[in-house]
Amino acid sequence: MEYKIGMIGCGTVGRGLMEILLAKGQALKDSLGFEARVVAVTDKLKGSLLVPEGIDLNKILAILAEGRALDAYPGGQGPQSRPLLPLEMIETCEADIIAEMTYTDIKTGEPATGYIEKALRSGKHVVTSNKGPAALHYHALRKLAEQNNRAFRFEGTVMSGTPVFGLFECGLSGNEVREIRGILNGTTNFILTKMEEDGMEYADALKLAQTLGYAEADPTADVEGFDALAKVVILSNVLLGASIKPADLRPEGISRISRADVLQAKKEGYRYKLIGFSRRVSNGVEAGVSPQKVPLSDPLAGVMGAHNALTFDLDLMGKVTISGPGAGKTETGFSILSDMLAIHRRFGR
Amino acid sequence: MEYKIGMIGCGTVGRGLMEILLAKGQALKDSLGFEARVVAVTDKLKGSLLVPEGIDLNKILAILAEGRALDAYPGGQGPQSRPLLPLEMIETCEADIIAEMTYTDIKTGEPATGYIEKALRSGKHVVTSNKGPAALHYHALRKLAEQNNRAFRFEGTVMSGTPVFGLFECGLSGNEVREIRGILNGTTNFILTKMEEDGMEYADALKLAQTLGYAEADPTADVEGFDALAKVVILSNVLLGASIKPADLRPEGISRISRADVLQAKKEGYRYKLIGFSRRVSNGVEAGVSPQKVPLSDPLAGVMGAHNALTFDLDLMGKVTISGPGAGKTETGFSILSDMLAIHRRFGR
Repeated sequence: MEYKIGMIGCGTVGRGLMEILLAKGQALKDSLGFEARVVAVTDKLKGSLLVPEGIDLNKILAILAEGRALDAYPGGQGPQSRPLLPLEMIETCEADIIAEMTYTDIKTGEPATGYIEKALRSGKHVVTSNKGPAALHYHALRKLAEQNNRAFRFEGTVMSGTPVFGLFECGLSGNEVREIRGILNGTTNFILTKMEEDGMEYADALKLAQTLGYAEADPTADVEGFDALAKVVILSNVLLGASIKPADLRPEGISRISRADVLQAKKEGYRYKLIGFSRRVSNGVEAGVSPQKVPLSDPLAGVMGAHNALTFDLDLMGKVTISGPGAGKTETGFSILSDMLAIHRRFGR
Repeated sequence: MEYKIGMIGCGTVGRGLMEILLAKGQALKDSLGFEARVVAVTDKLKGSLLVPEGIDLNKILAILAEGRALDAYPGGQGPQSRPLLPLEMIETCEADIIAEMTYTDIKTGEPATGYIEKALRSGKHVVTSNKGPAALHYHALRKLAEQNNRAFRFEGTVMSGTPVFGLFECGLSGNEVREIRGILNGTTNFILTKMEEDGMEYADALKLAQTLGYAEADPTADVEGFDALAKVVILSNVLLGASIKPADLRPEGISRISRADVLQAKKEGYRYKLIGFSRRVSNGVEAGVSPQKVPLSDPLAGVMGAHNALTFDLDLMGKVTISGPGAGKTETGFSILSDMLAIHRRFGR
């Protein structure tokens, strides 16, 4: 079955997705009966492109690699009198699935939430890697999706392509989640690893993370725990039946952890980890993000470098832990594909 | 949607499943639209019971707890002139799903394979926790299931209810599996853990495992690696496209590992683990089971006690590891439910 795809955002994640579709197109068709035809792309910086017969992904990747805008695509519906705005594109393109891959604004969730609402209302499935809409409006967007008999999926918002929601849906459902605990931010885990393994001071480890591209120039969202917190909120609302927002919680980050703290913990048989957690309590959930000394026997203790991990504590199965990459172009691009394949399994037969 | 269930075997796994269905029946109906009605049970030691209107699971669990046979069930179709044989029951009962939970015979795969073939040919889905049929006849049984448009599922054969196949299907498919490596036997992992953490000799740790019920009186299948090997064969055939049988491989177990070996490895920063592995090579797979010194930075190194874990090495996602229980009444019972829920997702809407 062929799905027409509309892409919003062709930054790192979008390009990762295009590369995967190019490399895997035939294999996905042969093994899973899934075909994707990208019919539209729109990007705040790069403009818009609408090609109902399907965009040649090799060509558009070459154009993007040269730093050119989307209207350089030969034979596309452009240059138009004016570029198509994202909301117009979502409404007018004949996509089956909108892949929303713009940057997260965790305060407002916009403009992504507006795009997603428009897509669902116009009968299109939505998959997204953007934490804003899922952290701020999960229950409303899920309801809107159900009303329109479409899917709203967001695997990539928590651990990139390392499956959390897919894992629960297909491997753990039937369990009640008592608690989740995880390492949900790769940047801070990389910094803590460097402080312990190489005896670096926090400031030096942060600088190294910035040099390697793991941390932004302004690292606040990572090191103060806001990124992990958004993920805790998504997990709480989706898996623990909560209705919380990021502003309800105050994270504690790692910026006050010193090399001495890390090495002292190591001596005592512990390892510092920035832990995001949420547990069921009588009136909802108790959730947060804080640096914790984890015993080495905890499966989370062995998760080093930029990797992420999540432990589910379940009423039937007890503790089940998944670990894997938490970021990356291919990994997050794969999360988008993975959500599309879930749509194919549910709606495509 | 209601599914009529026929159970073959009401030992530990079968009772675990019944207990879960009792505890979770209403929740499964409310949240997933899944209802199970057990209409038949047959067991080599306990006889057979056929109740088309549905067996009261509280009553039958009480009868089994008292050590009585199935025909003690009041109002069942018994005592009959002779008890129904399993193959007759599979054919005549009106089950939608046959849950095959008899003991593994890894040499012949019987009688389970015959039961599964009969069930598929008579248009019933099959879920099983029995390693024999999956390790010896996966490709043939899968084909038979496809020909009959039925499911053949076996989540519980590898890590009990800790999802491996469900995880791959719904969270990792689209990837090519380059290699799998795992701790696939809880008994040997428990013994190695005790040797390292408590400085026990192999023989003493084995004795403790037997006392605690982790190891059988004849521990050969566990300690010599045959149990892990069957799981490696299943994983190879299902996830790596191989066509191998247990007899093609010779496992190396842990019985020749001494306390001194374990403690020396620890000094060097390693940990002994019994590793099952399979990797793609030019002409198929290279697979086996052997004790290996694993660096502490390996996610498998942190898996202690009777827990199991599996690392997938994937072309798109790199390394993804799942760990959790590898045995247990509730855990293996849950694997059967989990497979039934997968059937519900695929066939039930």
